[in-house]
Amino acid sequence: MTDSFSRSPMIAGEQAKKMPKAAREAIQQVVMANRILSNEGILDALGHVSVRNPVNADTFFQARSISPLEVTPEDILEIDLDGDVVTQTTMKPYGERIIHGAILKARPEMNAVFHGHFAAVIPFSVTNTPIRPVTHVGSFLYQGVPIYDDYEPGEGMLIRTKHEGERIARHLGQHRVHLLRGHGCNIVAENLPRLVASAIHLRDNATIQWQTLLSGKETKYLSPGEAKAAMEIALFGASPIDRMWRYWVARVKRNMPDMKDWK
Amino acid sequence: MTDSFSRSPMIAGEQAKKMPKAAREAIQQVVMANRILSNEGILDALGHVSVRNPVNADTFFQARSISPLEVTPEDILEIDLDGDVVTQTTMKPYGERIIHGAILKARPEMNAVFHGHFAAVIPFSVTNTPIRPVTHVGSFLYQGVPIYDDYEPGEGMLIRTKHEGERIARHLGQHRVHLLRGHGCNIVAENLPRLVASAIHLRDNATIQWQTLLSGKETKYLSPGEAKAAMEIALFGASPIDRMWRYWVARVKRNMPDMKDWK
Amino acid sequence: MTDSFSRSPMIAGEQAKKMPKAAREAIQQVVMANRILSNEGILDALGHVSVRNPVNADTFFQARSISPLEVTPEDILEIDLDGDVVTQTTMKPYGERIIHGAILKARPEMNAVFHGHFAAVIPFSVTNTPIRPVTHVGSFLYQGVPIYDDYEPGEGMLIRTKHEGERIARHLGQHRVHLLRGHGCNIVAENLPRLVASAIHLRDNATIQWQTLLSGKETKYLSPGEAKAAMEIALFGASPIDRMWRYWVARVKRNMPDMKDWK
Amino acid sequence: MTDSFSRSPMIAGEQAKKMPKAAREAIQQVVMANRILSNEGILDALGHVSVRNPVNADTFFQARSISPLEVTPEDILEIDLDGDVVTQTTMKPYGERIIHGAILKARPEMNAVFHGHFAAVIPFSVTNTPIRPVTHVGSFLYQGVPIYDDYEPGEGMLIRTKHEGERIARHLGQHRVHLLRGHGCNIVAENLPRLVASAIHLRDNATIQWQTLLSGKETKYLSPGEAKAAMEIALFGASPIDRMWRYWVARVKRNMPDMKDWK
Repeated sequence: MTDSFSRSPMIAGEQAKKMPKAAREAIQQVVMANRILSNEGILDALGHVSVRNPVNADTFFQARSISPLEVTPEDILEIDLDGDVVTQTTMKPYGERIIHGAILKARPEMNAVFHGHFAAVIPFSVTNTPIRPVTHVGSFLYQGVPIYDDYEPGEGMLIRTKHEGERIARHLGQHRVHLLRGHGCNIVAENLPRLVASAIHLRDNATIQWQTLLSGKETKYLSPGEAKAAMEIALFGASPIDRMWRYWVARVKRNMPDMKDWK
Repeated sequence: MTDSFSRSPMIAGEQAKKMPKAAREAIQQVVMANRILSNEGILDALGHVSVRNPVNADTFFQARSISPLEVTPEDILEIDLDGDVVTQTTMKPYGERIIHGAILKARPEMNAVFHGHFAAVIPFSVTNTPIRPVTHVGSFLYQGVPIYDDYEPGEGMLIRTKHEGERIARHLGQHRVHLLRGHGCNIVAENLPRLVASAIHLRDNATIQWQTLLSGKETKYLSPGEAKAAMEIALFGASPIDRMWRYWVARVKRNMPDMKDWK
Repeated sequence: MTDSFSRSPMIAGEQAKKMPKAAREAIQQVVMANRILSNEGILDALGHVSVRNPVNADTFFQARSISPLEVTPEDILEIDLDGDVVTQTTMKPYGERIIHGAILKARPEMNAVFHGHFAAVIPFSVTNTPIRPVTHVGSFLYQGVPIYDDYEPGEGMLIRTKHEGERIARHLGQHRVHLLRGHGCNIVAENLPRLVASAIHLRDNATIQWQTLLSGKETKYLSPGEAKAAMEIALFGASPIDRMWRYWVARVKRNMPDMKDWK
Repeated sequence: MTDSFSRSPMIAGEQAKKMPKAAREAIQQVVMANRILSNEGILDALGHVSVRNPVNADTFFQARSISPLEVTPEDILEIDLDGDVVTQTTMKPYGERIIHGAILKARPEMNAVFHGHFAAVIPFSVTNTPIRPVTHVGSFLYQGVPIYDDYEPGEGMLIRTKHEGERIARHLGQHRVHLLRGHGCNIVAENLPRLVASAIHLRDNATIQWQTLLSGKETKYLSPGEAKAAMEIALFGASPIDRMWRYWVARVKRNMPDMKDWK
């Protein structure tokens, strides 16, 4: 199989070098987020993650159409909120980048978006079962996890048109997470560490909740009040979120030889 | 334990060197397919994969009787559709090569066959439960997954006779996948990347579907229409299939030292 | 993300060097316990383990606020039973160190405490289901596993106040393990090898018990009499506990390059 | 923790060097069996495996009391069928070696014994549920898997007395496998490759059968006739058993650096 996505490293790499420091740091961090999500088994060949450009709220950074495992800084494109690639390049973007632009446009207070397909959420999505927080690190789910099922006909369940991007953003509304029936989920957060934590703990909460639900036993979920406090203190507080990010980075460095010396 | 399958590398290797480029590339790709299926936990010691000879539709390439983990280009035999080994060699073929020949004979539009035993399909096969697509990457299952249960007596549930090979091909019919009761599954596809994707996503779809089914909840499977579009666009489209194959190759190179420099 | 927990190795390291040999050995062992619990998948970024100072029953040793994967001897703080850090350092302790101090104060016969969140215990904790021993290595659970649900409002389900520490210690009482609803568990033991064995076998017993319980079949748990004998002989006897600790250490040395030459 | 099992390599190693070639090969193979069972996740710190001495039917070879992961040829003891250590050594044997001697005495046609605790069999053992073959590689289970529950009081569910060894052998009878309630299983086979295959496929069959059983669906197990043929041809036939053993050895060599050059 020939590589149909020829790399133009000079182009993307050279353009990034001329960006302000904050933008270059965001590019570094979105590369690490890709690697973490791959290393922790959250993303495989498919799925993607993005971060808003900190020096231009109307664009975001995201890898070209490759697997998260392979992403390096030279693979990161700058894309505007309508999904048009700003980087001068022939590199191919993800078809579903439209999700990221639409959500970042609708949620100006948020700066990072995840789209993925891990197995744990699918049973909820096809049985219309609400995901609810069963642990303190699943607390961020307390405002509800709606299930999207309004696919554009003929698109193969992919979200690739501007209209469907808008529908997706509207359906997500003020939630942090929604599921796509028979497909996966989208997550939004203030920054990449919170986004990565949300993806990992969504997977874990969903797995635990489904095992619990199979028993048919009455279940005590977190109340909205305790969930809100747990989210702010035990999950997104400075201490736990720093500790988690450091831990995931340490694991990437141990497992991925090309990331060993990541600054 | 002595190695009863003595390697005759000069014989098979020398014969392959004289083949046209397309045939040599097919041999390389079927080696990689073996390694991917081993690396992703789809095949263990048993099970096998084949690809039709691109320069002779009446033969196919398949490893001698060793585990997929160990396969190198020198282990690949050329075999005709009746299961006779064409390569001049003393190397021993798989007993169940008959499955591959029979299916390739009955499906001229297809070029790659998988036979394996991963755990996820067995519960369906022994409870007569239809596998159905629960995700967009399980979409290729939409035409149904029949369950074969017409074993030749005295063969230990193995498919090794010409007659049973024909029964298997007839039972598979125009489907992409069928199960063998209490044994495993056969898969057919247009090429090796699609075949590998089918094996991996069959495993994942079956796992998710069984977890869903244990809940007893009403389940919305993909409709035939959306599954067909999802298969063509989101699974077998050029972009996703290239990304998946690249990803699985990258993982083989990371995990298997002898494959690190695979071109 | 900047490292908000700057390391002061000279300070903690220099102070440890002046301690009696028994204290220095306890520090080494609590480092190894951290690594084992990380390596065996019992702890991820969160959770912690402590050991009483063998030369001062009123203090204990515990890592500063980092993940167990990263802990080295220079990260170990000396903390008193009220949670005040004795080590002269700017390094930040875990917020929930209060659990460790309170339990060690209430249980003078015990010397090691674990707090963690592994998935296997959560379904029990949110459905009010008693964990009971299903195997001889789960025998230590025979005196019952109560479920704590008396969280301090506004603390995000974390145990960080002196009052709640006392409630936790009272709730644990004379048990070896209790669960925290929607959060995790605390474990106490005579020493670190028994504590690590308890954490690992709690996880395994809970996993097996939940799978068993999903079947709805009548289950024969260990009787109190056979559990007590199994705990004393088959789990905490000199031979099995030595063999287990050696095994976990061997795995740490194989998997963590920086621990390869651990004495 | 000090190493209470001091190694006396010169003693055991020197004695082995003087043994006939067949005995030395059996020692090599039982070392590899230990490593395979560790590498495949069948044994952890506990559990053990033995092989009858091919030049003296009244003794068997088994490791001293260490984890299977750590076993080398210098750790192998010669033990008689009453459990007395024949090797002149201070190395400590497993307490439960009595199981191995008693079964080898009662089954002269068999030459290898396994005792272990993997999770998959426990739910069957505590709910009195018969394990039955659901796949062709689980075929060896077709004669039934009785559940032992006649423990010696005060022994902590361990099998360590001569009387209980005899009860165990009687309970196993002419079966290949029996379970020990709330503890694990014993397996017997003609040789080590068949024994290792039996342990791995018992684990896999039990896992699949339990998942199937949770659905409550009517299940078609292998008939005794097809199971017997499958066992003889598809599992223990020369081709599959050689392929499996080679595969497990290849994985040990890849994963365990000290076994890389094993002949």
